[in-house]
Amino acid sequence: MPNPTAAMLVIGDEILSGRTQDTNTNHLAVKLTEAGIDLREVRVVGDEADEIVAAVNALRARFDYVFTSGGIGPTHDDMTADCIAQAFEVGISVRADARAILATNYKNPDKELNAARLRMARIPDGADLIDNPVSKAPGFRLANVHVMAGVPTIFHAMVESVLPTLTGGEPLLSATVRIEAPEGEIAAHLAQMAKASPNLSFGSYPFIQNGVFGSNIVVRGVDADRLKLAREELEVLALNLTA
Amino acid sequence: MPNPTAAMLVIGDEILSGRTQDTNTNHLAVKLTEAGIDLREVRVVGDEADEIVAAVNALRARFDYVFTSGGIGPTHDDMTADCIAQAFEVGISVRADARAILATNYKNPDKELNAARLRMARIPDGADLIDNPVSKAPGFRLANVHVMAGVPTIFHAMVESVLPTLTGGEPLLSATVRIEAPEGEIAAHLAQMAKASPNLSFGSYPFIQNGVFGSNIVVRGVDADRLKLAREELEVLALNLTA
Repeated sequence: MPNPTAAMLVIGDEILSGRTQDTNTNHLAVKLTEAGIDLREVRVVGDEADEIVAAVNALRARFDYVFTSGGIGPTHDDMTADCIAQAFEVGISVRADARAILATNYKNPDKELNAARLRMARIPDGADLIDNPVSKAPGFRLANVHVMAGVPTIFHAMVESVLPTLTGGEPLLSATVRIEAPEGEIAAHLAQMAKASPNLSFGSYPFIQNGVFGSNIVVRGVDADRLKLAREELEVLALNLTA
Repeated sequence: MPNPTAAMLVIGDEILSGRTQDTNTNHLAVKLTEAGIDLREVRVVGDEADEIVAAVNALRARFDYVFTSGGIGPTHDDMTADCIAQAFEVGISVRADARAILATNYKNPDKELNAARLRMARIPDGADLIDNPVSKAPGFRLANVHVMAGVPTIFHAMVESVLPTLTGGEPLLSATVRIEAPEGEIAAHLAQMAKASPNLSFGSYPFIQNGVFGSNIVVRGVDADRLKLAREELEVLALNLTA
């Protein structure tokens, strides 16, 4: 059975303007790979409701899991929860359980849990809450869409909350062999190996370091024995090319 | 007249598996913002021809400029050039000008410019070459799609080659005010400012630093005077909230 598939949707003008380097995608990618879930597509869109709704609907129809990052804070540019409700055509309102969780964050909830903060307790109908041990305001899951915060420390904590609820597949194993020869010297051999082992995937990731052109060859697959054989063959190739 | 729009398409399994943190998007985003071109969407797809073709066609129809990164090297997993040809329904073949450029990279082109390397001279019909001062193998532009390498040093160099050919808009200016108070304390004031100045965009980017919750407020717009007024108002807000 093939592994479950996933997509990531990063929401926020700050990524598109270049102000902020997105790192949440890489964090999620590593965690999903460990869990045997194949991240197949990533999209980044800005703080525009139509764009967010369209992306959510495109991705949730095509992949087993969708994860979003960003846009669930208390300010006017935080519109993800409303967009999710719109995408699923369900209602959205301040929910008692989310409000109660938020209240625990304030010494004087009557005064400090103001209108802006209460926005963070607006949850689309039918969603389950995602625990946020860092700053309380919860994320939520609706069907296969997991809605999480953009601040990396909070995103990471929410991913940890979510991971045990996902159905993973066979963990994808990988082996990397560094070859200090240009890709063009390796390509023919590599294509031949890829053809001979259709159950493994062979990636070539070129680098330039101190003026030396080389490539990291990454072999991926779920069969540890075949992976080992491929790694050994590549190690011999590396020795021959740099000898 | 609104600024031209752009999309970025990152191609490569290594990004989706978490092996590699994509930094090309952030580099391009900064350069486009400086040039007055609005990056509106980013997608990451793996080394799958159907996915690449579909993404290229979706993005080139919707945005003024499309930029791609990755998949133009000599190995079997480098399939971007063929996918671009397929997306545009044009032919692709080894082109004499690209071959001549590649040949300058080798002392003995007859021997060293092997079949794998010649793949890098395969250019879709009708494309212009994009200069690669780092490792010679060119990128190319076909209509509004700019196809560049994934290795960051080469990607950066190709972006420099491409920038002078783009039609920019008014550079988007920005001002950032750091407020050491939780977003929930700022949100109402910020929403009011955003409503009063529809020509400026107000983003709130929360952080947690040494246990302190705060937010960087970023105001963006093309009108320097209005931007200055907004910054001053936010600075007063910051003083009042942390006094």
